[in-house]
Amino acid sequence: MQAEEYNLRGKELVDYITKYLSTIQDRRVIPDVKPGYMSALIPERAPAESEDWDAIFQDFQRVVMPGVVHWQSPHMHAYYPSLTSWPSLLGDMLADAINCVGFTWASSPACTELEMKVMDWLCRALGLPDFFLHQHRDSRGGGVLQSTVSESTLVALLAARKDKIMQLDRDQDLDLDPSVLNSTLVAYASDQAHSSVEKAGHISLVKIRFLPTDHLMALRGDTLRRAVQEDRRRGLLPFLLCATLGTTGVCAFDALSELGPVCAEEGLWLHVDAAYAGSAYLCPELRWSLEGIQFADSFVFNPSKWMMVHFDCTAFWVKDKLKLQQTFSVDPVYLRHDNSQVATDFMHWQIPLSRRFRSLKLWFVLRSFGLKKLQEHIRHGIDMAKLLESLIRSEPHFDIPAQRHLGLVVFCLKAGNALTQELLRRLTCSGTMYLIPAEVHNKRILRFTVTSQFTTADHIRRDWGIISKIASGLLGETAGPDQVQLGAGVKADDEATEETTPRMDKAQVELWIDKTWNRSRRPMRSLSCNSEPYSYLGPRCGHAFESKLSPQEEAGVLPAAGGKQAVKKLTKFYSVPSFCNQWTPGSRHHLCCPLKVSQAARPPSCRRLTCIPPSGHGDSSPPPGDSKLL
Amino acid sequence: MQAEEYNLRGKELVDYITKYLSTIQDRRVIPDVKPGYMSALIPERAPAESEDWDAIFQDFQRVVMPGVVHWQSPHMHAYYPSLTSWPSLLGDMLADAINCVGFTWASSPACTELEMKVMDWLCRALGLPDFFLHQHRDSRGGGVLQSTVSESTLVALLAARKDKIMQLDRDQDLDLDPSVLNSTLVAYASDQAHSSVEKAGHISLVKIRFLPTDHLMALRGDTLRRAVQEDRRRGLLPFLLCATLGTTGVCAFDALSELGPVCAEEGLWLHVDAAYAGSAYLCPELRWSLEGIQFADSFVFNPSKWMMVHFDCTAFWVKDKLKLQQTFSVDPVYLRHDNSQVATDFMHWQIPLSRRFRSLKLWFVLRSFGLKKLQEHIRHGIDMAKLLESLIRSEPHFDIPAQRHLGLVVFCLKAGNALTQELLRRLTCSGTMYLIPAEVHNKRILRFTVTSQFTTADHIRRDWGIISKIASGLLGETAGPDQVQLGAGVKADDEATEETTPRMDKAQVELWIDKTWNRSRRPMRSLSCNSEPYSYLGPRCGHAFESKLSPQEEAGVLPAAGGKQAVKKLTKFYSVPSFCNQWTPGSRHHLCCPLKVSQAARPPSCRRLTCIPPSGHGDSSPPPGDSKLL
Repeated sequence: MQAEEYNLRGKELVDYITKYLSTIQDRRVIPDVKPGYMSALIPERAPAESEDWDAIFQDFQRVVMPGVVHWQSPHMHAYYPSLTSWPSLLGDMLADAINCVGFTWASSPACTELEMKVMDWLCRALGLPDFFLHQHRDSRGGGVLQSTVSESTLVALLAARKDKIMQLDRDQDLDLDPSVLNSTLVAYASDQAHSSVEKAGHISLVKIRFLPTDHLMALRGDTLRRAVQEDRRRGLLPFLLCATLGTTGVCAFDALSELGPVCAEEGLWLHVDAAYAGSAYLCPELRWSLEGIQFADSFVFNPSKWMMVHFDCTAFWVKDKLKLQQTFSVDPVYLRHDNSQVATDFMHWQIPLSRRFRSLKLWFVLRSFGLKKLQEHIRHGIDMAKLLESLIRSEPHFDIPAQRHLGLVVFCLKAGNALTQELLRRLTCSGTMYLIPAEVHNKRILRFTVTSQFTTADHIRRDWGIISKIASGLLGETAGPDQVQLGAGVKADDEATEETTPRMDKAQVELWIDKTWNRSRRPMRSLSCNSEPYSYLGPRCGHAFESKLSPQEEAGVLPAAGGKQAVKKLTKFYSVPSFCNQWTPGSRHHLCCPLKVSQAARPPSCRRLTCIPPSGHGDSSPPPGDSKLL
Repeated sequence: MQAEEYNLRGKELVDYITKYLSTIQDRRVIPDVKPGYMSALIPERAPAESEDWDAIFQDFQRVVMPGVVHWQSPHMHAYYPSLTSWPSLLGDMLADAINCVGFTWASSPACTELEMKVMDWLCRALGLPDFFLHQHRDSRGGGVLQSTVSESTLVALLAARKDKIMQLDRDQDLDLDPSVLNSTLVAYASDQAHSSVEKAGHISLVKIRFLPTDHLMALRGDTLRRAVQEDRRRGLLPFLLCATLGTTGVCAFDALSELGPVCAEEGLWLHVDAAYAGSAYLCPELRWSLEGIQFADSFVFNPSKWMMVHFDCTAFWVKDKLKLQQTFSVDPVYLRHDNSQVATDFMHWQIPLSRRFRSLKLWFVLRSFGLKKLQEHIRHGIDMAKLLESLIRSEPHFDIPAQRHLGLVVFCLKAGNALTQELLRRLTCSGTMYLIPAEVHNKRILRFTVTSQFTTADHIRRDWGIISKIASGLLGETAGPDQVQLGAGVKADDEATEETTPRMDKAQVELWIDKTWNRSRRPMRSLSCNSEPYSYLGPRCGHAFESKLSPQEEAGVLPAAGGKQAVKKLTKFYSVPSFCNQWTPGSRHHLCCPLKVSQAARPPSCRRLTCIPPSGHGDSSPPPGDSKLL
């Protein structure tokens, strides 16, 4: 391909993209393909000779597009939004053409400097503390664009760990191997935290304790304080809390205003994960859940979700940049204060060395929309979610088992988990919209996220009409017609509901719902993703809030068959790194408390680590409503 | 911005990009800006109102472009190539518009399936073993696109570690905490390995031993074997070798054919980092250094370097995908063989959860060029490097201290390090080309990488003319004119060399050369990047190949002032995690050998871990030349 052809084909693609995104609501949001569908459509080997663009682009349409989930569709309600926008697309066109690699300031100064500037813009636009700014006289912090929130969670954990290990190294004269010190550390998150916290535990070999939440699915300050104190008595060293603002399951908010002071008192690094909800802080009236942010050591959210900067673009701030640099710098420490004060080298702020010019698309979006239009987009999404909420509440067979926050509504059929599950299966088969499930207190729920900036009230009514009609049919199969009166006030789009005849077999549908639906033993932690809190007894355990231990088990007696090995095997079913193992009765954990702190306080028998009851069931800083106070 | 405006502006950008890339050779490759240059050019806050595209794009040209390093320029010779190409740009235009997030098969089937297909194409095109294929009856492996080679190095290390820890867990009944087991593990790389290996050590808290290389800067099999055996005697558990094919410093190749069998005998995971050189394996005649690849457990290279698929695009293969999944899966293990056999969920193959649709641009590049044209591109780059090599050899004041491989030539002035350094400073000031330094056996060298597919012999002659003329002037300042006769046969571009008047002050130039040039205590590990091997005595130590220990230090006696604490403080200057600490005399390392293996064999006094002499100084599989055997 020569420059002339790129020029021609590039413009053709601009037309294609304009049309694709302008008419995306007409596409089937979930593709009608089975695993392996592409296998027969593409040859086994790359071509030796160059191929014409026409052949390539035809294959793109023939092979690729039929297998795409249309994340930009107003009928995409799964996961959280992953939006793009016109200025974002233009930004990356330029960044890809320049294709500089911004690991140091010197490797492309504009890449580093624009990122610093735009991160300061964003920090101010979200109402975050000044100590996160690059350019501020009292600040030692700054912001950086990471690839994902998952990676940022790991970055925060690693930085907090390094800091704690260096502190132990300074304060003690024990001269222990960092890995051995690592075995004594413990981090916290709520049982609603994203799977990336668990993954960060795998990678770092750090013990993560997932703490129970209150009835609003929020982690409370007292729960954290008790866990920390208990762990200290056991000789562990608490060092990090990952608080979530807007959980993946139901968009719950940990009580930051309570957790912040506990972290300050107990010397924990407070990392705040606001992956989805962060975009909402563009609107001052939505910042109630940020109360306590002044205690944060790091904060992350995804402009690549709701803020229409296409993936990847994750905004991560740290209060003390030296704590990142001492974690990731492969420069010697004794030169740290030399040239690094003249220019910023972002390679020391992240796990990989190389990095894209991501700030350009973010800059374009902030300028092209302006803050007011971005706020309008957020408020419009919330209004659409409120509309759906009102439609659901108007139908007696549906329940909303958790408070709506922002653009996420969760609902279920009152008739129970099995019918809710079947409703999802039929909706998925129809291909008319994409929802995923989650679980709230053993209740299966469907998550409905408003995503696109082009979602209208008509789209919401159309989707609710389909849900309502399918539910009506479903309930009609299991009950007399007089018991079912769904769909009042809303007409389902007939054309769409005609598609509800299943096109996929059951196995395939189970893949669509992310392979987790039928697994009562371990609710969808890794995706959608409220978690079954860790319990050492494996699949026989029920929900964490209710003890399902047998009397023998409660007393610390081993299961009859297999003894310690059986317990050990069962614990391996869980991926949280061998945390509870330390309290498995009869095991030889001579090394769990190398600092010899409070050895005597170690509990005599195994205890469930999640059995601390959640504290105060009152509201955790309830929102003052989504009223527009700006 | 509405769809109509995107349509208009997108086409304007296609024109802009066409012109930018077609005339890039005329731009000053290194921008003429100082740290903080952007500060005054951009306001402190994001705009409240939306801004016109004209204003945004004018600022892009006014603020951003003057600070860009033009990586696509034929005068860009720093680091390694980071190329794009027309079909690659078209691929990402589409991927960004679709903007699906492919963490699971279900989240966008085409994203996962095309990636599997294209990774199989690439595996075959490079001549890699069948066990890396997704679709092959004897294979349990597969390929995945990661963000960077740095991240892939960490992924390989984490997978190898998890595998070793699980194996220990099965084989022993010690029931130790994984972190404590982690403290006994040791991984290996050559002293030429990329800084990302060291960073992976920081992150994982795994000890990395950087082994000495032979006169060709290659790690040899005997060196590895001796290190492994010595470490086993010390009670450590060797588990991983990261071999490099094409090091960053001089593009040296570890002797894979020797290292592979040692890894197999000793049970080490063999990870192969061919970040730059991997693209060359598209040409069968360049595969001599792949001998031994059948022993590899994982292999990584960057299509985003020389293969013209723009960043990010890192191809990573693993022999046994279950070993990745057991490392990163947050699904319970007991369901691993269930639906995961029907569809691939790449979230279990990587550190982050989310992932871009990267395979599209790779697919477009492979098809639009075809393998033959990609081979031509590689061979052309090598020819250009050979041309430069011949020009350098024709001038008596220059030396080529390490064998040229592929598109990288390293050279220096025979007059010594100071003048070579000054030559680079003047070249950098001129802005006419971008080179970075490295170090070979205490000799400072300049790296000249051929990058762009549009580099011609004229570009090479122009750049060499400038280098030669500046060197001539430099040597003329320090010697009589009869001693200096540079530039014979090549005319420097007058216009270009007139630019050689320094425009930047010294501090700025030092930033340009990546802040490492003047640091004899620790050569440029983190970037360019051959490393000073780890030695526990800190900055006083010279090159690893020569012992600079005082007689007392050789005898294991502590430095006079401060005793153990002084040594400990010094070791902190080095960022490799506390490896040598374990042999610091007098320290209390009760926990370094928790498995109680060969405790008695621990050496009685501290030993330099890099003091194993490199084995056999013969050639390590010397290349049969770059002759085209295809």
